[in-house]
Amino acid sequence: MTTPPKLTRREMLAGTAGLVGGAMLTGLPLEGQAPEPAPAVPPDATKLQGAPTAPLGARSPFEAPTRAPSGATTGSSLTPLQDLSGTITPSDLHFERHHAGIPALDPARHTLTIHGLVDRPLTFTVDDIRRFPQVVRTHFVECAGNGRAAFRAPKPEMTAQQVAGMLSTSEYTGVPLATLFREVGVRPEASWFLAEGGDACVMTRSVPVAKAWDDALIVWAQNGEPLRPAQGYPLRLLLPGWEGNINVKWVRRLELGTRPWMTRWETSKYTDPMPDGTARQFTFELDAKSVITSPSHPDTLARKGWHAISGLAWSGRGRIARVEVSTDRGATWHDAEFLSRPEPKSPVRFQYLWEWTGREATLLSRATDEAGFVQPTRTALIAERGLGTDYHFNPVLGWQVARSGQVTFFAET
Amino acid sequence: MTTPPKLTRREMLAGTAGLVGGAMLTGLPLEGQAPEPAPAVPPDATKLQGAPTAPLGARSPFEAPTRAPSGATTGSSLTPLQDLSGTITPSDLHFERHHAGIPALDPARHTLTIHGLVDRPLTFTVDDIRRFPQVVRTHFVECAGNGRAAFRAPKPEMTAQQVAGMLSTSEYTGVPLATLFREVGVRPEASWFLAEGGDACVMTRSVPVAKAWDDALIVWAQNGEPLRPAQGYPLRLLLPGWEGNINVKWVRRLELGTRPWMTRWETSKYTDPMPDGTARQFTFELDAKSVITSPSHPDTLARKGWHAISGLAWSGRGRIARVEVSTDRGATWHDAEFLSRPEPKSPVRFQYLWEWTGREATLLSRATDEAGFVQPTRTALIAERGLGTDYHFNPVLGWQVARSGQVTFFAET
Repeated sequence: MTTPPKLTRREMLAGTAGLVGGAMLTGLPLEGQAPEPAPAVPPDATKLQGAPTAPLGARSPFEAPTRAPSGATTGSSLTPLQDLSGTITPSDLHFERHHAGIPALDPARHTLTIHGLVDRPLTFTVDDIRRFPQVVRTHFVECAGNGRAAFRAPKPEMTAQQVAGMLSTSEYTGVPLATLFREVGVRPEASWFLAEGGDACVMTRSVPVAKAWDDALIVWAQNGEPLRPAQGYPLRLLLPGWEGNINVKWVRRLELGTRPWMTRWETSKYTDPMPDGTARQFTFELDAKSVITSPSHPDTLARKGWHAISGLAWSGRGRIARVEVSTDRGATWHDAEFLSRPEPKSPVRFQYLWEWTGREATLLSRATDEAGFVQPTRTALIAERGLGTDYHFNPVLGWQVARSGQVTFFAET
Repeated sequence: MTTPPKLTRREMLAGTAGLVGGAMLTGLPLEGQAPEPAPAVPPDATKLQGAPTAPLGARSPFEAPTRAPSGATTGSSLTPLQDLSGTITPSDLHFERHHAGIPALDPARHTLTIHGLVDRPLTFTVDDIRRFPQVVRTHFVECAGNGRAAFRAPKPEMTAQQVAGMLSTSEYTGVPLATLFREVGVRPEASWFLAEGGDACVMTRSVPVAKAWDDALIVWAQNGEPLRPAQGYPLRLLLPGWEGNINVKWVRRLELGTRPWMTRWETSKYTDPMPDGTARQFTFELDAKSVITSPSHPDTLARKGWHAISGLAWSGRGRIARVEVSTDRGATWHDAEFLSRPEPKSPVRFQYLWEWTGREATLLSRATDEAGFVQPTRTALIAERGLGTDYHFNPVLGWQVARSGQVTFFAET
């Protein structure tokens, strides 16, 4: 690593004094932010038997990350990116977007049927699916509408959760869809398939068969445990790198055919009206994108000196190849370091060490993927697609740091 | 992948019939095991608005993985390996072993002091620690006593949780201990350090300084979120690949010196009495090991044909290089496939496809790490260390499959 933060002489002395007198072990409050009201803790935990084991481990009462609803929509919630580290999203904090609520499904009754242009139409139980050879893959899921509010109407008080919280990452276990397609004998003339979910809106989307032969999965586990109901329990279609909606949750039926079905979800929704009156349709792949999660609003930088700027970068087209960070509103850019190994269609955690001198600063991040796509400026994106588009927002954005250290959302306007 | 399971003609017909008549979409129970009593679900989830969003996502009522206590010990619980997939352990299912309960600590008051043979003794707040350059690493933590009961007194009714459940894996975020040691200026003559925890037993262990310059971390996050209290919130010393106990939780003090401190936890505990009257001491590294988690007791194989044998393999000495599976009690061995990329001191999920003919079978797994260590037979381990040893159990073991399909624990005796 590089130059670590410089601690002040006062802190050094405080440390030494603490050592000699033992004062910091007696529970005198030090600097730091506790949530309000602060949970009660004993003055000295070493003088009291701690809590016993329990069937499930709980969070510390000092940590209460929660998903926030996304504006007026009742069927969505956002991952609190500003509270998270690393790359994995805890399963209970995975973002949600559903159009008729979360169905209650019995895994012993749920089935997946594959039919249409196939040699052997089959219905698989969940146990059948779990008996196939497995794969383990870490991928993100991102809602196509992620970042809409920040794109349309950026506000200084927006948080990372509000700006980019419809992005979550899990280690998935499942069976390649190609395995199931070979089992049913998909016919050569089949070029599209319909995926149907078992929720109350019977979500349906059309998918090119080529994606099944590439990297599509039917998954049943996330982060080591069975899928959570909000992520499609007991079975989900996972199309790595493609917009969230087409990763059909609670999937129960796949029908092979030769044309897209033109469902509501690919005609009135999940299409992008363009300035010239046309509409982009079947815009499956999510573009290269990044977000700085620390510092972010409502942080306040407590002191000058070295800060580790940290965030996530991802692309639906493959691995992230490069992340650059600017601290001067894009005048100069610096390569960030990767803290995790870039994997295809999986976010990388990046870090850039920055010495804050106490002046105003604008922190931006810009991702480039291995396909060569570079995250565009907001101005370039608007010039290309206008302001009317409803999906696929990936402009460069970031955070404004005031002289007071206060951090607010920044988007080029 | 390779040959997928063969579905029977009856199943194929059931699938086709379902398609034609739509019967499988109306909620008629199919084969499968529901937990008892089965949670209530609507007969047809597509006819009912589903559940709304919530601040935190919950598990399906059909899935209730829990940690079981380990025998008579009140301060430990075991990860339900048989319920898990992939490599990550959900944070609320991470195993526990503590000797005075789980302390309640306020992160605004908790500090880490580094002193002794250093140029600048310092006390760091949790915020100080989090400001340093970070790293993200996936590692296992395994209790040195993992598998003791299965080694001493194997019983057919033991589960994977009972046999190997003191093993859990997380994606950790933290700061290299080397960074902090450079900050305080560890003196060249320092060769050991004492790590002290803030729980009621004030856990203390002696660690060679070389481990700090290698890969030791002070971590604050697991699987994307702050450490859970049972795993050391707010700060834990993580010594990748070393026995669990020395990964001191709730760490509050590191003292640099020239000799081990000979604490209770490295003299009366966490040493291995040998048949010749001596004792192995400071046996930090965990040996190459593996466990088949599926099938495992109390599974019953429902039918002959292809089954994906799946499990975990890990080593404290580096990457797993090879996993072999035997289905004939070790007479012949076959290379298993890796479902995840082997990383240093991190478990790999392995898989071996096996066609069960309906005869009795004994399933075993054997791991080899990149350092060349091969998991020994139980007989070889007993010949080397006797039966009196209390820690570091890594014999080859597995599962007996009866003609009925019933699966029971198998250990060479």
